[in-house]
Formats: sequence, C-alpha cells, structure tokens
Amino acid sequence: MTTNNIRQIYVDHSAGKPVDSRVVAVMLPYFKVLYGNPSSFHRFGQEAKQALDNSREDISKLINAEKPETIIFTSGATESNNLAIKGMAIRNRQKGTKIVTSAIEHMSVVNSCKSLVRQGFQTTFSPVDSYGLLDLVKLEENIDEQTKLVSVVYANGEIGTIQPINEISEIVHKKGAYLHVDATAACGQIPVDVNKDGIDLMTISCNDMYGPKGVGALYLKDSLRIDPLLHGGGQERGLRSGTENVSSIIGFGKAAEITRLEMRSESKRLVKIRDSLIQGLIDPISYTFLNGHPKKRLPDNVSVRFNFIEGESILLSLALSGVFASSGSACAAKTLQPSHVLLAMGLKHEEAHGSLMITLGRQNTQKDADYIKELIPGIIDRLRNMSPLTPKELKK
Amino acid sequence: MTTNNIRQIYVDHSAGKPVDSRVVAVMLPYFKVLYGNPSSFHRFGQEAKQALDNSREDISKLINAEKPETIIFTSGATESNNLAIKGMAIRNRQKGTKIVTSAIEHMSVVNSCKSLVRQGFQTTFSPVDSYGLLDLVKLEENIDEQTKLVSVVYANGEIGTIQPINEISEIVHKKGAYLHVDATAACGQIPVDVNKDGIDLMTISCNDMYGPKGVGALYLKDSLRIDPLLHGGGQERGLRSGTENVSSIIGFGKAAEITRLEMRSESKRLVKIRDSLIQGLIDPISYTFLNGHPKKRLPDNVSVRFNFIEGESILLSLALSGVFASSGSACAAKTLQPSHVLLAMGLKHEEAHGSLMITLGRQNTQKDADYIKELIPGIIDRLRNMSPLTPKELKK
Repeated sequence: MTTNNIRQIYVDHSAGKPVDSRVVAVMLPYFKVLYGNPSSFHRFGQEAKQALDNSREDISKLINAEKPETIIFTSGATESNNLAIKGMAIRNRQKGTKIVTSAIEHMSVVNSCKSLVRQGFQTTFSPVDSYGLLDLVKLEENIDEQTKLVSVVYANGEIGTIQPINEISEIVHKKGAYLHVDATAACGQIPVDVNKDGIDLMTISCNDMYGPKGVGALYLKDSLRIDPLLHGGGQERGLRSGTENVSSIIGFGKAAEITRLEMRSESKRLVKIRDSLIQGLIDPISYTFLNGHPKKRLPDNVSVRFNFIEGESILLSLALSGVFASSGSACAAKTLQPSHVLLAMGLKHEEAHGSLMITLGRQNTQKDADYIKELIPGIIDRLRNMSPLTPKELKK
Repeated sequence: MTTNNIRQIYVDHSAGKPVDSRVVAVMLPYFKVLYGNPSSFHRFGQEAKQALDNSREDISKLINAEKPETIIFTSGATESNNLAIKGMAIRNRQKGTKIVTSAIEHMSVVNSCKSLVRQGFQTTFSPVDSYGLLDLVKLEENIDEQTKLVSVVYANGEIGTIQPINEISEIVHKKGAYLHVDATAACGQIPVDVNKDGIDLMTISCNDMYGPKGVGALYLKDSLRIDPLLHGGGQERGLRSGTENVSSIIGFGKAAEITRLEMRSESKRLVKIRDSLIQGLIDPISYTFLNGHPKKRLPDNVSVRFNFIEGESILLSLALSGVFASSGSACAAKTLQPSHVLLAMGLKHEEAHGSLMITLGRQNTQKDADYIKELIPGIIDRLRNMSPLTPKELKK
C-alpha cells in the first residue's frame, strides 16, 4: 500500500494476508541460491527435495497427520478442493455417484461438485440452521448408499461458524462414506487434528497461515487413493504433476511451524478483540445482528448485518476513513449476488445485502477495534438517514 | 547451495533456474505491503488487480498477443498444458475426439492426452526425424476430420530442436484444427510471436524466464473458448479459479519484461558458448554425437551422447568435480527409463542411456565451458575403460 497520512486499518484477512517476515526470510535463498529441481539427482536437486520433505513434516505436525507423505502440495485451496472432490468422486464412481456437501461451502467446493454433473454425478446441498451449523439429522438422511463422498467446511470464513467435525465424521463413516473437510479458514486459527477429528481428506491453505499465496496442500489419509487432476511428470506421488513450487513450499512449512507454536496465544488475543468489536457494534446500534454462531466461531471473524442499508455503502464509507473490510467472500465478490452462505442461514436478500465482514489479523490491535467501534455508528446513522428502507422513527 | 571450496558450475537450467534479483525485488512488496486479494473492492484489492493487469500486458507484449486478456495465469507449464489439451478437447468433443501430438512432447502433454482416453478420446503421436524435427507429411496425414486439436512443442528442452511452428500452423489450420504449442523452453530464449507463428493456444513457463516457480500462463486466442479445469470463484475470466498468486505473477511480468529487452543479446552470447562446448566435446572424443539439430537449436542446449557408457555415471563424475548437469528431462528422472524423446529420434536404448544434457544459463560464462571441455574427455576415457561395452581397441 502506498503510504499516505491517513490511518490505514486492514481488516480483510479472510481475503488475503501479508506474508510473515520470518516466512519471507526462509523463502529467499530458494529464489537465488537453492534453485534446483527436486527431481534432479545432483546436490541442487537433492537439497530442494530435502527442503520439500521438511515442509511436509512441518505441515503434517500441525494437523497431527500420521505421516508427512499424507501431505500433497497444490497451487492453493481452490485446487485442493477440486482435487479432493473430483479425484475422490471419479476414483470411486463405480461405488456411487452421489456427493453430499453443505449449503455454505466455498465456491470451489460448490462448483467442483456442479462440474461433475456432466459425468453423471449428483450433489445434495445439506441445510444449516440460522447459526450456520449443519443440521446433523438432515445430513444423515442425505447420505445414502450411493454416497461415497461428503464434503464439509471446517469453519466458514465468511460467518466464522465452526462445525462439529468429529460428530459429522462419525455420521459419515457410519454410512460408509469418506469425509473431505475444507479447512482453509480453520487451519491456523483453531486446533485441527485429522486423527481426532476423523478426517479422510483435508484442504489446507498457506496464505491463511501468513504464508505466500499460490500454494496449498491436500491431506490424504494414508490408505486412500484418488485420481489426479493434473497429469505429467508424476510429482507428489503421481497425484499432482508439475515442478514443485519450492520456495513457496518452504515458506508454507515455516508458516505451519510458526502457527503451531503461536496459534493458541494469538487466537486468544484475537478472540478478545473480536468480542469487544462484536459487542461494540451490536449493543449501541439498533437493528444490528451477528451472523454466525456467537461462541463456535473463528477467532478472526466479525460478521454483522445492519438492517435497511447496503454492505457496499458501509464499505465505501469505511474505506474513506482508512478501514478496509469486506461484505463477504472475496471469491464471490464479482457476482454482486447476495452471499449464498447468508441465504442458506435463512436471511432474506435485503438482510444479506446489509452485511459487513471484518476479519482480524496479526497486525490488528485493540486500538484498531476501538477506532472501528467509534467510527461505525456514525456511518450507519448517516446511511440509514439516506435509505428509503429505513423506518421513519429511526431517522434522525 | 551451501558454499564450499570446490568450484560449482550449474548447467541444468532446463530443470530449474535461479530467480533474477530484479524479479525478486518487485515481488517483495506483494508479500509484506500489497497483500490484497485482487477480487476485493478496496484499495488493497484494486492495487493488486492493477498489478496483475500490468503483468498480463508485459507477457502479452513478449509474445505479441493481440491483447493482455489473452493471458490466463496458471500454476505453471504443467497446468497450462493440461488446461490447453483437456480444456480444448472437452469443449470441442462434439466436433471430434482425436488429438494429434508429436512423439517428443513433455510428459504433461503426453499424459494429459492419455488421461482423456477414458472419456473417449484417442491420440496419435506423430513421428520426428533423427534431428527431432516433426515429419510434416506424416503430420498432415495424421490430422483427419475427427481432429480438432494438435499439440506440438515449440522447442524440446531436452534436445533443443526448434520446430517450424509457422509451417505446422498452416497445415493444422488448413485441416480445420486448432494448434496448441508448448513454448515452455522456447519462450524466453528465441523470439516467439503467436500472431506470426499462427498459434491458437500456447503454454508459457515463468521459471524458464528466470521468474519464480509455481506460476505459468496459457495464451488463449481471443475468440477461443475452453472448459476450465479448476472450478471456483471464477477468476481469470472463469477459466482458472483460485485466488491469484499475486507476488509470483508480478515477478512473471518483470521476468517477461527483462526477457523482451535482453533476450537477443543474451541468446547470442549463449549460442557462442554452446557451440564451443559442442565442438569441444564432439571433436576430441570419438564415438560422440550431438542429439538434436545442429542449427535449429535452442541457445542453451548442449545434448550429446557418448557410446558405450551410461549418462548417470558421467553425471556422477561431473558432480564430483563440481559440475551439475542432467541426463534428460528432470520430470522424467524418476522412471530411469531411457528418454522417450531420444527413442523417438531413432536412437537405440543403449545410445539414449549414454546421453549428457547441459543447459546453459545467465550465470554461465565461456570459462565454465572451457572447464567442462577440459574435464569431460578424461571422465569418458575412464568410464569407457571400465565399461564392458567398450570395444578393446578403444581402451587405453
């Protein structure tokens, strides 16, 4: 960001995070000195390969995977979700062609499922309650004998609600299906343990842990087999061809290590700021509501809706005061449609449109929250005064 | 590479290249300061988007594309080859299910074609001559009415031979098919002009231009439509979903700009070193032959074969003297099979096994070549003396 004199508070960490300086530091040598191809037999190649293996170990430790080889590097969470869903579905097509997922998944899950229609698959989008929690009874009903794959988000980055993955896993396995979990927003913020949670495949994002963009991973339980999406030189045990993105993978390993060591204290810090911000917005401003679950909630997520006005106009006013937030998932921003996640929770179109999403990060402090709390009531008053939807008695 | 006292000469640039310091310099701000998501509406997002657009322009200029929007960013050459082949084949399946490619393609082209068999496609691998040049008469014969896609490598990185893309394009278009060109090794070393060359889709690698690994592009002619491989948020005009790898894409743009400005003089320099090295190996050492075409050849490529011995033992001896080369494509190194490229040129298994591939780079100088020329004859003599395949009269 070019510097200028106004205060700048970035609270859109769900869309993009800075890369930790310690991560950048370990990446740099792989640009300039250790630039070998891990498939090469000589030293340059073998040093790169060793570094990949170390990263695999760092990431497997963070999620308590049974061994480092369960980690497959990809180009990011979108590719991991595509690989998990298409790779599992196509591999197991003889056993069943139904996929069950939730109504609040990321577009890369939704559209991966939809892309399989042409190949004879069908998808059921299982409902959630008004907090965004999966209805487990309905979920169990939806998983039939034709269902071999269930895909559920660990915690939705837009509303912050954390799913009871362990209970979901029990249901899925009892029914004889496999469980893929999109842990893009969760992994790095809350403890994720593939073993305890009973997860078969899991999507992990690197940038969400303050590593570089353009790299991600898929955890694939040791005994499982999937079909690859990208064919070629047979890298990543034949499951993901393409020369490995060595420098970014090294950064990914470091980001995972930092997360493992610092997550608990950092999340505790964020929860305090988050809750002070939620309270500071909901208590003083009438007709204002929290999206998502108040307790089962990602530490970074403040998602609130203000009746009678539009999220975009709030964002614009905030930006003019140097606060950069969002009205929903950046990946869905192009459509200008109300968020399918908020609609799935039972909100009306106009309610969904009035949402503001603040996602906190490592640089944010309580001071930032205080500034935002001071700023927003005036913005909401002004916008409501201008809005034709605002009841007369609310106008000032 | 950890430093030590022996001289270190890296001549395996086809497998991996260092990232130019000027490229790293433009990437760094996107890690720490300009970390927005290009889909976000606020300044952080819009500055990232602007940077992507600038890179698109830099790359389109390098290949003389009709407009920047023809550049689709991917995670690398392997993904670009997969996207081009599968995306075109599946999009046009109603018009024809035959793909024609050459017998000397990269594994990402070969295996993308093979992966389509299950979906009812068939592939013909068109032959090459002993220089690795496509047999244009056979190519024309192979393209029938069922063929909607032809995929040909611009220049094979292993043997260096440059194909007559313009003539190939004429044949392909006359037959009513589209031409995809894998320009991974070519783009950055020789002038590539999608307009003059008549190319419909083209794979571009970033690391091959001294940019970072983990990013690449597909040129897609303006009017063409393909099916996406990765589904999700609809980035890259819906053709490649996933949050853009902003820092790497910025680096890609810079690498393309540097290439555009410096390629001609750098290639001239490399051709001199290359030819001195080829001559210095073939002239003094008996039963030694050049792989690939002597003139229609990439500036960086020295591929020679020494009868009676194995490439791996040459590599090992070279490495002990601080020279890091290869025996073929790094992406095929895992198999230990003789290169399908060399076999397609008519070499016997044992001849293909005796190949040494040296690929020069920006840091290499004539001094490096002189050192290698001095070193290799002794290595060959020693290995031939030990080899049971060497005729008695050659042993010393």
